[in-house]
Amino acid sequence: MFIILTYDVGEKRVNRVRKCLKKYLTWTQNSVFEGEITEGKLHKCLADVNKFIERDEDSLYIYMVKNIHNIKKEVIGQQKNYDELFL
Amino acid sequence: MFIILTYDVGEKRVNRVRKCLKKYLTWTQNSVFEGEITEGKLHKCLADVNKFIERDEDSLYIYMVKNIHNIKKEVIGQQKNYDELFL
Repeated sequence: MFIILTYDVGEKRVNRVRKCLKKYLTWTQNSVFEGEITEGKLHKCLADVNKFIERDEDSLYIYMVKNIHNIKKEVIGQQKNYDELFL
Repeated sequence: MFIILTYDVGEKRVNRVRKCLKKYLTWTQNSVFEGEITEGKLHKCLADVNKFIERDEDSLYIYMVKNIHNIKKEVIGQQKNYDELFL
């Protein structure tokens, strides 16, 4: 399935969270990761990331679409490749 | 249709951009708006927001799903209502 994962994580934890998410998804905007992922890998990804976040402070939204053809993306302005930036 | 709009906008412009987006969508996470919107209203929303952004610096992603039943959302941690915060 295709997922969009958006996050709002405290500064102290954000680098660890990004590093973890990068193993499974593509970093496409400052607070956004996206990509094709199996249910099993998503489960593993969320279990991993759970180790680093504070549930009473941080926030992760995961939007899941089974068929990528059911979602359309439009970009206004920049489409950076955050994966090429330092992490 | 249902849309998720994520943004990465320079500090000087971000308040105006949020204020503009709030007219059309719900602010659900620091860098995320979402909501049901018609194509006509989305067109108007993007025309409005275009006045405030710098296309060579800022970034807006709009993910569109025609049928809300084709997308599933999971929340980890906080689900704040940013609309209740000061803007």
